[in-house]
Amino acid sequence: MNVKYVCRITSYTVFIMALFMLIPAGIALFDGEMRNALIYLGVIGIEAVFGLIMFCAGRNYNPTLYAQEGIAATSLSWIVMSVFGALPFVFTGEIPRYIDALFEIVSGFTTTGASILSDVEALSRCNLFWRSFSHWLGGMGVLVFMLAIIPQAKKSRGSGIYLMKAESPGPSVGKFTPHLQQTAKILYVLYIALTVLCVGFLLVGGMSLFDSLCIAFGTAGTGGFGVLNSSIASYSPYIQSVVTVFMILFGVNFNMYFFVLLGQFKSVFKNEEVRTYFGILAVSIVMITVNIYSIYGSVRESIHHAAFQVASIMTTTGYATVDFEQWPAFSKAILLFLMFVGACAGSTGGGLKVSRVLMLGKNIFRTISNVLHPKRVHLVKMDGHKVSESVANGVDAYLAVYCVIVLFSFVIVSLDGYSIGTNFSAVVACFNNIGPGFELVGATSNYGHYSDLSKVVLIFDMLLGRLEIFPLLALFSPDLWSRKR
Amino acid sequence: MNVKYVCRITSYTVFIMALFMLIPAGIALFDGEMRNALIYLGVIGIEAVFGLIMFCAGRNYNPTLYAQEGIAATSLSWIVMSVFGALPFVFTGEIPRYIDALFEIVSGFTTTGASILSDVEALSRCNLFWRSFSHWLGGMGVLVFMLAIIPQAKKSRGSGIYLMKAESPGPSVGKFTPHLQQTAKILYVLYIALTVLCVGFLLVGGMSLFDSLCIAFGTAGTGGFGVLNSSIASYSPYIQSVVTVFMILFGVNFNMYFFVLLGQFKSVFKNEEVRTYFGILAVSIVMITVNIYSIYGSVRESIHHAAFQVASIMTTTGYATVDFEQWPAFSKAILLFLMFVGACAGSTGGGLKVSRVLMLGKNIFRTISNVLHPKRVHLVKMDGHKVSESVANGVDAYLAVYCVIVLFSFVIVSLDGYSIGTNFSAVVACFNNIGPGFELVGATSNYGHYSDLSKVVLIFDMLLGRLEIFPLLALFSPDLWSRKR
Repeated sequence: MNVKYVCRITSYTVFIMALFMLIPAGIALFDGEMRNALIYLGVIGIEAVFGLIMFCAGRNYNPTLYAQEGIAATSLSWIVMSVFGALPFVFTGEIPRYIDALFEIVSGFTTTGASILSDVEALSRCNLFWRSFSHWLGGMGVLVFMLAIIPQAKKSRGSGIYLMKAESPGPSVGKFTPHLQQTAKILYVLYIALTVLCVGFLLVGGMSLFDSLCIAFGTAGTGGFGVLNSSIASYSPYIQSVVTVFMILFGVNFNMYFFVLLGQFKSVFKNEEVRTYFGILAVSIVMITVNIYSIYGSVRESIHHAAFQVASIMTTTGYATVDFEQWPAFSKAILLFLMFVGACAGSTGGGLKVSRVLMLGKNIFRTISNVLHPKRVHLVKMDGHKVSESVANGVDAYLAVYCVIVLFSFVIVSLDGYSIGTNFSAVVACFNNIGPGFELVGATSNYGHYSDLSKVVLIFDMLLGRLEIFPLLALFSPDLWSRKR
Repeated sequence: MNVKYVCRITSYTVFIMALFMLIPAGIALFDGEMRNALIYLGVIGIEAVFGLIMFCAGRNYNPTLYAQEGIAATSLSWIVMSVFGALPFVFTGEIPRYIDALFEIVSGFTTTGASILSDVEALSRCNLFWRSFSHWLGGMGVLVFMLAIIPQAKKSRGSGIYLMKAESPGPSVGKFTPHLQQTAKILYVLYIALTVLCVGFLLVGGMSLFDSLCIAFGTAGTGGFGVLNSSIASYSPYIQSVVTVFMILFGVNFNMYFFVLLGQFKSVFKNEEVRTYFGILAVSIVMITVNIYSIYGSVRESIHHAAFQVASIMTTTGYATVDFEQWPAFSKAILLFLMFVGACAGSTGGGLKVSRVLMLGKNIFRTISNVLHPKRVHLVKMDGHKVSESVANGVDAYLAVYCVIVLFSFVIVSLDGYSIGTNFSAVVACFNNIGPGFELVGATSNYGHYSDLSKVVLIFDMLLGRLEIFPLLALFSPDLWSRKR
């Protein structure tokens, strides 16, 4: 294990964090909250010191890295981000308990959007901004940002792919240019452009610049933190529709936008994952619209709310325009189903990812063929190409670990004594980075009532979900830390 | 596809069913219920005619068979068994609606034990017997019974293994003698011996012969149908303890009893699945005992009820001595966890099976190693032997289909509008062949309130669970019916 390299990467992460914390510090100054501004500057100071120590610990590092270092650097960076990112909430006294603050910021970075706060509106604007901005940063990934802005040592060129692999969602990482730095830059340029577009549309709807920024961050990162206790319910139908459309857009694999820029529309239309994603969205919206029609009495309103909630849950954002806890069981079951599916690979969304679900479906047919004809070789195809056995089996293996984590988390969280629906949906909503679940953790509730043990489990689940399990689990493997290759 | 062979096997199944229906007919005669006796004889007559037609359709069959025929014959036999097995309930008028009767008998044959009856005690003894006996027959399997008693054509010798594979639970079938018929005979002799032993112990406790037989059938098949509305709660602690011990014994891989007979105790003690099975049982009993101590106030009583319920759920029997719906959420979560694990492969129990869970756990470590060292080859060992890649991957693939079925069933069943806990546990309890779930389908409730659509889904889930998914799913594959090999 190349510990020095890991230290160097972690130092970069902390520096980037410190840099971005200047924004809420500025907002506090602008609002005349001198104490809050000093607190943010103080945390930036702590980060700078820690970053320098890590930077020095990583001097003369060997720039060749393997999967091991990529995994360790990514996991540790996310843990360090969370540990420091929670500090402003505690020091400003607005989330006095550290475990609650940690829950809130991990929920932010992992773009979960689950909150322990019952009154969001009581937060000062600097903290509200930091909370929403964490969605934006965590959505595309802080290490991808690092790869985009920090020129890599000549010797290490290309080996940063292990960082990107560990941080990017989905079974495989799309590298649409041979140069990693360029890929990372394009991703962030697309990300910023779409976010700016979203802010623009929100401003047109009469939303203030501050609210527009926060809601756009929550939408872009498919996070779900808002600035009002009523989430998106009290905004105008226009604003709600804008959020619906942008949630869906941010749930699409970003490679598609690159193809669009290059004019390769065929590649987009032929992409099986994107087609399945829109197919599932459409079918779910239709089924829920029919199911909730009797509640709203108007087709237009039923479609409006069905589309918003379906887009919100499937992209794992977690915003709400209505208390879907009051919807019929069938609609809730569809939403629970969508929680598992999640958004496209290579988007900012969580869940299993549509491409994995697609592969799981194809694997089922392969397994049936295997049972019927044990001696034949059965291959799975995706987008017309043959998928290697190891990738196809890897998706099944991912689901296996996924289920084990859900079950174990569920058992521990049950120690708090709530209902099966509450505990199960809390674990599923955190692990898939959605936010709201059902019953006691429904759209109008929060996670504040859980015990500290459950909060720790759910924090861990959120990180496992965002980093797609293995990077974080591998931290506990002695194998990761051994010097052997 | 060798259709004639499939017809021949199905005819044997129907004849065996007809033969066994003579027992409830005899009971009805003995009880002086002439009408019921005639009804059973009438159904036997229908079966005989249908069996003869199938027998003739299968004349001059080609005795060489492949996986396809084994799968088709097994699935169709189970469907035919269920269709005819439900008739006496309808004709006697005790379960007037056919869909309810079908639910009840499929629940019997698949050893689920989920009932649509709110008053079991209202059934006549012939129907009570038939209901419990279906557990016993379905537990070890009617095709295994057929293999044991019907001498096979010389040319087909050994090819019956495909039938046994399709019907026996677990990722691989234990064939402890080179002759299949002998293996099947030994299995049934062990099964009968253990059942007789169980009846003996129950008789010693003062239970009537009829009740002892019914409860022993429900225990041996890990089914769960009883003869009283209170399940096992109103029996003496001695009876409850006897049932606890025998449930655990019937959840062990039957190969172990064969090893015990041969004096190969080392093979038993070294068997990883058996050790894990007893380990999980012990840990669960301890955790639940601690969790429910405050309810019962006595260590002895807490252990007694914890042991009974843990054994009942883990072996997927489904008997109850208390209404565990009243237990704390943590205990219920452990029980829900055990529902997924299930009993040992090669036992009469359902669920994923301990050996699969063990393999899933080992696969997780393999996957982590794969992530850390993508170029190394990582093998899984079981009982000291290397497990082939295809078997290890097959377990992951099994789980994938398993999850998809649970989720889809959950969504459809949710149309009835009950809570997440009710619907989810109903699907899990039926699919894993347990019986009682939680909330509205808890230990003191039944499945009568579900709609016909939900009942059809749950019937299908029970069959999928008993036949371990693929044989039944394959029936829908055009590939199964093609003439190509």
